[in-house]
Formats: sequence, structure tokens, C-alpha cells
Amino acid sequence: MTSAVLDQTFVQWRGAQQAAVEQALSGWVPLDAPAGLGEAMRYAVLDGGKRLRPLLVLATCEAVGGQADAAMRAACAVELIHAYSLVHDDMPCMDNDVLRRGKPTVHVQFGEAQALLAGDALQALAFELLVPGDGSLGDAMSARLCRLLALAAGADGMAGGQAVDLASVGIALDQRQLEAMHRRKTGALLQASVTMGAATGAVARDTLAALADYGACVGLAFQVVDDILDVTADSATLGKTAGKDAAADKPTFVSLMGLGPAQTYADNVLARAHAALDRSGLERPGTLHALADWVAHRAS
Amino acid sequence: MTSAVLDQTFVQWRGAQQAAVEQALSGWVPLDAPAGLGEAMRYAVLDGGKRLRPLLVLATCEAVGGQADAAMRAACAVELIHAYSLVHDDMPCMDNDVLRRGKPTVHVQFGEAQALLAGDALQALAFELLVPGDGSLGDAMSARLCRLLALAAGADGMAGGQAVDLASVGIALDQRQLEAMHRRKTGALLQASVTMGAATGAVARDTLAALADYGACVGLAFQVVDDILDVTADSATLGKTAGKDAAADKPTFVSLMGLGPAQTYADNVLARAHAALDRSGLERPGTLHALADWVAHRAS
Repeated sequence: MTSAVLDQTFVQWRGAQQAAVEQALSGWVPLDAPAGLGEAMRYAVLDGGKRLRPLLVLATCEAVGGQADAAMRAACAVELIHAYSLVHDDMPCMDNDVLRRGKPTVHVQFGEAQALLAGDALQALAFELLVPGDGSLGDAMSARLCRLLALAAGADGMAGGQAVDLASVGIALDQRQLEAMHRRKTGALLQASVTMGAATGAVARDTLAALADYGACVGLAFQVVDDILDVTADSATLGKTAGKDAAADKPTFVSLMGLGPAQTYADNVLARAHAALDRSGLERPGTLHALADWVAHRAS
Repeated sequence: MTSAVLDQTFVQWRGAQQAAVEQALSGWVPLDAPAGLGEAMRYAVLDGGKRLRPLLVLATCEAVGGQADAAMRAACAVELIHAYSLVHDDMPCMDNDVLRRGKPTVHVQFGEAQALLAGDALQALAFELLVPGDGSLGDAMSARLCRLLALAAGADGMAGGQAVDLASVGIALDQRQLEAMHRRKTGALLQASVTMGAATGAVARDTLAALADYGACVGLAFQVVDDILDVTADSATLGKTAGKDAAADKPTFVSLMGLGPAQTYADNVLARAHAALDRSGLERPGTLHALADWVAHRAS
């Protein structure tokens, strides 16, 4: 399946939600932060990316009949965490990358110090969004979302996965180790997108467990396909530097198992994502099914 | 006044609270984060520093009769934000410093990439602490503390102040601009320490306003004395590189007004801190008075 044959209803939903997320982010990422910091933050966040994490939050909220304004704040908060991680990850002391979303990376555009600070400020802003000053989300919702986001972003989640990634250059990980790294590095935030979406509504325990499984499978599918695209796509299509994992001697699903088996593995993980939704008991899981297909069959 | 003549009750209180904070931090900063990340996080946080911010949280909680377990979590959360900011601030792309709390800085000890990640993970951990998994703080308390911390740490607080600091090298700021920079850079988190401490209890509006003024004055006094010590103390006493502001051509209260007038200014700000407490209506503000004296008269 390619995006050309994706359900048109989904394609329309996706476009509308991406526009809504862009508008919300533009309203929340400050124009007026001092000394150019706001400009760097907005450059890092606006006008780019697939907004996969926000879409997962919003689709899950819809599937569980959750609170829409809480979901939009959660969607933007996870995207801010994702955006800050890209800014820091691209810095010279990390991946030293110059191209992101088809544009110069933040440190190339604004300098390393400003990139460091912009990332730091974006992380703080993510939590700020989850506790609006007017209390409109309700304290219970704010607290729940803050906890899910903090756990996904921290040492046991994304930041921990980055540390493993750093330590793995030139090391042959086995499949279990590679999966464990990605469960943290990209999986934790993708899964949190789903569980935060679920947290905007009232969800039975079994449904929440199935949604968490779905989120984990989408996270893994995302990473395997990322590894495949790093080998098969060019930089112009990706909007970021292609072939960089191999150049950096980083372990990937492709380097571990080869291109064909990696594709088969991605197909299997996608099937598990669909199966998790099938046992979720949700009445309207259609958009979540379509999102999983999109993740697994995307071209960039 | 020097610490030798500080009230012995305060000195004992301070020592006991510093030990309690150290123990709490040691329990909360993970030993087992992957790939050395936990080690770098613990190195950045444990066994060092005056713990001024935690002491402000705890003293304010005591003064308002607040919830002690919430205050200890808030105290550690603000210290984690402070610690992460030092880690990032010391990095080569920022202040490029090699000495902190008498030890090699985190990036010297663990490498730049690990320092970057450790700082990022410490910020996430700060918010995690404020929303314990068992819900023991109550949702309203968790939400309130998260909001205060996020605002103090972000673009309108500490990170924004750092951006102004960066942009001010070699520029002659006037007193108003210098105060505005420090209100964000160090003042926001010091003030938040007081307001978060107040948030652990039920405080009348006028009392809260007086406490916020007190926090702002303590923050300003802290910075002016920091500028004075940068000129008058040596690196061994400070545990960090002395004379670095002048070497970096950064505007300071000393470079702006000279050493004597800077000391007079500090004395005036200290008097304003005491006056704010006097009008707070608090029955037991003694420790807060003593903390302000300590900040203004410290030797390192």
C-alpha cells in the first residue's frame, strides 16, 4: 500500500489535523521570547514534519471519545518534546547533522548555544502547555498528562534511548538489544502519544493495554521503516541526510538482518499493531488503523 | 554578618535540610539509567552545591504550614532544573567551563553528548517528581507545581535569561536591562522556589504577593553577590572558575557600578527582602529572614 491508495477520508482527516496542530503550535510557541530565542524555537517547531505524534494523540482521543482541547495540548506537547530532541540530536556533539526537514538544522541557522537553549526551552514549554493557567483541562487531566510525558521523555524513555544509541556506535547489537534501544529512543514518545490520547478520555483497562501495545508496535514499525528509508531513499525525499546510519556505523534493523528481512519484520510489526486495535474493543479504530499503515508504508 | 555569626538554629536547620535533600535526590536520580546516563545525572546533581533553591522551598513550606512531602519533591525538582542548567551552561558552546563545585564539569568527565543528554533527562525528571505515580501529592498540587516550574524554567524564565546573557557579551547593559536579564536567568527559579514552597500550603493573596517579592529580592541579591564574588573570591573558595565574567566580557553589577556601589546595592536589595517578609503576615518567617542574610553575606 502506498499513500496514493490510502483511504481518502484518512488523507483528508490527516491534512485537517496537521493544519490544526500547526495553528495551535504557532499560537503557543512564543514570538516574543528574548534575544532571538523565540525565533529559534519557532524555526525548530513550525512548518515541518509529518506530525505523526500529534496525529496519534488526536486519533486516539477521537477513538476513545476524549476531551478535544486536552488532546490538542497533549498533541502539541509531544511534538515539542520531539522537536527539542531533534534540535539537540543534530548538534555537533551528537549526530552533527546540517539538514532537517529540508532546512539547515537549528544550530547551523542560529548557532550551537542558541540551539541548546531553544531545545531546553521547548521541553519546558511542553509541560507548560499541559497545565494551562486557566485550569481548563482540570487538575487530574493535567497531572496525568504531565506524568506520561515526563516518563516518556526522560532517562527511562527518549533520553535514555539516545544514550544507548550513542554508546552503540560500531557495536553489533542483537535484535533484542536493538529493539530495547528503539523502545526507548523513539518508541517511548510514540507510545506516550497513544496513551496520552487515551488519557483524555475514560478508557477500560483492557482497552488501554491494547492501545499501549498498538503504540509500541507503531513505534517499532516507525523505526524499522526509518532504517529502511535511510538506505533506500535520497536526502531530498527524506528532507534529512540519507545514509547517515551506515556512515556513522550505527546498528540498524537493516544492518542486523538485511533489507528484505527488515521489510518482512516491518510487515509483521504492522500486523501486530492492527491486531492490538482489533482486540481493543474500540468502536471507531479506523483512523488508528490508517495511521499504522501510513507509518509502515510511508516514502519519507 | 558572616556565616560564623549566623544564628546557630538556622545553621543547624540548614545542615539538616541539606542532608535531607541530598538523601531524597539520591533516591530519585536513577542509578540504573542506561549507557552511563544515570552516572552522569548523579554526578551533576549529588554531593555538591549550597542547595539554596531547595532550602527556599522547604523554608517557605514551613513558614506557611505546607505539605512536607510535596515540598521535598518541589525542592528536589527545582534543584534538578538548576543542576541541568549548570550542565548545559558549562558546555563548550556556552560558557566552556571546566570546573564546577570543585570538580570537573560534566562534559569534561563524561563527554559533551552525555552531558547534553544528562541535562535533558534531568529536566524531564524534575517534572516526573512533581507527579508521583501513587498520586500522593494530589492532582491539584501536582498541577500547580508543574505550572510554576515550567514557567520559571522556560523561555520567559531561566532559558530566556540565558539567551539574553549570551547576547549580552561585550554589550554595556544599563541597570534596568541587567536586572531584567537576571530576573529571568537566576531570579525566576529562585522566586519559583519560594512560590512553589508557598503552593504547598494555603496562603492568602497578600502573603503570596509578599513572598513573591521576597523571592525576587533574594534572586537579585544572589546575583549581585555572585558578581561581587566573581571579582573578590578565588576559584578554590568558589568551587568554580573565578573572574570568568570579566574574562568573557559579560556585563555584571560590578562592571556596571563598581565594587562599592554593587555592595551597597546588595545591601539595599537584602533590606527589601526583609521588608517583604515583614509585611507578609507570616507568623514564623525567621528561617526565610536567615536565608536572605545567608545569600547576601555568603563567602562562596
